[in-house]
Amino acid sequence: MARIEKLIIVGAGLIGGSFSLALKKAGAVGEVVGVGRRPETLQRAQQLGVIDAAGGYDRATFSGASLVLIATPVGQMQPVMRAMAPLLDKTTVVTDGGSTKQDVVKLARAELAAHLPRVVPGHPIAGTEHSGPEAAFPELYRGRRTVLTPLPESLPESVALVRAAWETCGARVTELPAADHDAALAAVSHLPHLLAFALVDELGLRPNGEQMFSFSGGGFRDFTRIASSHPEMWRDIALANQAALSSELRRYRDKLAVLQGLLDAGDGTAMQDMFERARVARARWLPSLQPPVQPAGK
Amino acid sequence: MARIEKLIIVGAGLIGGSFSLALKKAGAVGEVVGVGRRPETLQRAQQLGVIDAAGGYDRATFSGASLVLIATPVGQMQPVMRAMAPLLDKTTVVTDGGSTKQDVVKLARAELAAHLPRVVPGHPIAGTEHSGPEAAFPELYRGRRTVLTPLPESLPESVALVRAAWETCGARVTELPAADHDAALAAVSHLPHLLAFALVDELGLRPNGEQMFSFSGGGFRDFTRIASSHPEMWRDIALANQAALSSELRRYRDKLAVLQGLLDAGDGTAMQDMFERARVARARWLPSLQPPVQPAGK
Repeated sequence: MARIEKLIIVGAGLIGGSFSLALKKAGAVGEVVGVGRRPETLQRAQQLGVIDAAGGYDRATFSGASLVLIATPVGQMQPVMRAMAPLLDKTTVVTDGGSTKQDVVKLARAELAAHLPRVVPGHPIAGTEHSGPEAAFPELYRGRRTVLTPLPESLPESVALVRAAWETCGARVTELPAADHDAALAAVSHLPHLLAFALVDELGLRPNGEQMFSFSGGGFRDFTRIASSHPEMWRDIALANQAALSSELRRYRDKLAVLQGLLDAGDGTAMQDMFERARVARARWLPSLQPPVQPAGK
Repeated sequence: MARIEKLIIVGAGLIGGSFSLALKKAGAVGEVVGVGRRPETLQRAQQLGVIDAAGGYDRATFSGASLVLIATPVGQMQPVMRAMAPLLDKTTVVTDGGSTKQDVVKLARAELAAHLPRVVPGHPIAGTEHSGPEAAFPELYRGRRTVLTPLPESLPESVALVRAAWETCGARVTELPAADHDAALAAVSHLPHLLAFALVDELGLRPNGEQMFSFSGGGFRDFTRIASSHPEMWRDIALANQAALSSELRRYRDKLAVLQGLLDAGDGTAMQDMFERARVARARWLPSLQPPVQPAGK
C-alpha cells in the first residue's frame, strides 16, 4: 500500500490505538496524531507510543491528513464529524471503527455531506473486554475480519486506501451493505453482549450473588467475559442497532420459552436434540471462529 | 494422604481420566482399573495410560478397591450403582463426579443403601468442552473447586479419603448441603449452558446461519464455547436439576423481558446502568473466577 503520511486517530483507545500500532509496526504510516475528549488519555497514548502527537479540532491537526479513523463509541460520532467537517482537506479519506453501520452512514450523510466520496464506513470485528490506550496492541486485527460498508458515493480509490490499511493490519476485508452488516452483527455480537450483561447483573443483584459466583467455573468465566465490555459503548451499540437487536432479542426469548417448555415437561429427548444440533453447528463453524489474539500479559 | 492402592474409575472420560492422571502423577495411586459401557473407550484409555486395566462388574474388578469414582453422566448412575452394589468390599469408599447432587444422593440411598457410611457424593467444578479419554489431563483440577456433599451417614474417614484425593489433584475442597450446591450450580453453570446451546441452535437453524457465524468474533466464540459440551451429559444435568434450573431460567427470562422493554423504549441510561453494574460485579468476582487450564495443543 501507499504509505499513509499523516494519520488522525479520533479516540486513541483499544480500536484506534491498535490500528495505529499495527500500521506503525508495518512501517506503513508517517505521523499519527491523536484527537479525543480527554487530554489525559491522549497523554497516556503518547507516552505509550500509540500516537506521536496530540491534536485538536483545528486546521493544523487535520491539514495534510491522508486518513482519519474515527474510533470513538458510536454515540460520540455526530459531534466528532461535525467538528472535523470544515477542517478536512478535499483528499482526506475518513473511515470509522463503529460496531454499527447504518447509523454511521446516516450521520456521515448529515455531517460530512460535502465529503462523501472520501467516506468509507468500516467495522473491524475484533476487540477484547479491555479498553483505553493501554489495551491497544498491534496484533489485534491479525486474521480478523473487517467489514467495509462503502456509500454509493465512495470513490474506488477511497475504498482501496481503507482496505489496504486494514489488510496491512492483518485483517481480512469484506464489503457488505450496511443493513446486512447490522443484521448479522445483531445476532452474533450485540445479542450475546446483552445476554451476558443481563446474566451477570441478575446474579450480581442477589443477596447471595457473591457465594454463587464462588461456585462458577471456566464455562461461566468465558460465557460472561463480554459482560466486562465498555458499558457506554454497548449502550450506544444497542441504541444504534435497536431495530435489528430488538428483533433478535425477541426471537431468542421465544427460543427460551420453547426450552422452558421442554425443561418443565422433562422432555430429555428434545433437549438433547437441541444441544446436539448446537454442538454440531458450532463444530462446523469453529474453523471460521478465529482463535483469540491477546496481548502478552493480559 | 494414604496411597490409594486400587482405584476404580467408572467412565474413563475427561473427568474420571483426569482424576486418574492427577493421582498417578502425584504417585498417590497404585492400580487404576477402568469400567465403562464401551470396550473401545476403555481400550483407548488404557493405550493412553489413563487406566492400567479394563475391568467389569465382577468380583475380581471391585475386590480390594480403596476408592470408586463414578464419573459417568448422571443419567447412567442408577444402573452403575445397582451393578456395583453387591460387589463392593465393606471398606471401599464410593464417590462420584456428577454435576448435580440431590439426585445422586437419592440414587445412592436407593441403590447403595447398605453402603452409605462409605458414600461421599462430590462435584469437581472443572471441565472443558472436550470429552473422552483423549481429553483427560492431570492439571484439570488444579486450583479448581470440588464440592463434597456428604450424607449424614458418611463416615468422617470416608470424607477424609475423598477430600485428600481431590486435594492431591490440586483442587480446593468445600463441603455443602446437596440442595445448596444444586441451587448455586443451576445459576452459574447449568443456566449458562442452556443459554449457549439455545443461541447456537437458534442461529444454526436459520437459512443464513452460516453467513452470520462468519461475522462472529472472539466474544461469540467464548460465549458459545460451552455449547460444544456433551449433549447427553447436559440433558441429564437439566433433568436432574430440573426444579432449580427451571426457576433460574424463568428468572432470567423475566430479566430479558425487562431488558427488551428498555431497549424498545430506547432507555439508554437504564441499559448503561445495567451494563455498568454487570461490569463492576464481574470485576469484583473475577479474582475468584479461575483462569482456564487447558492441555497443551487443545
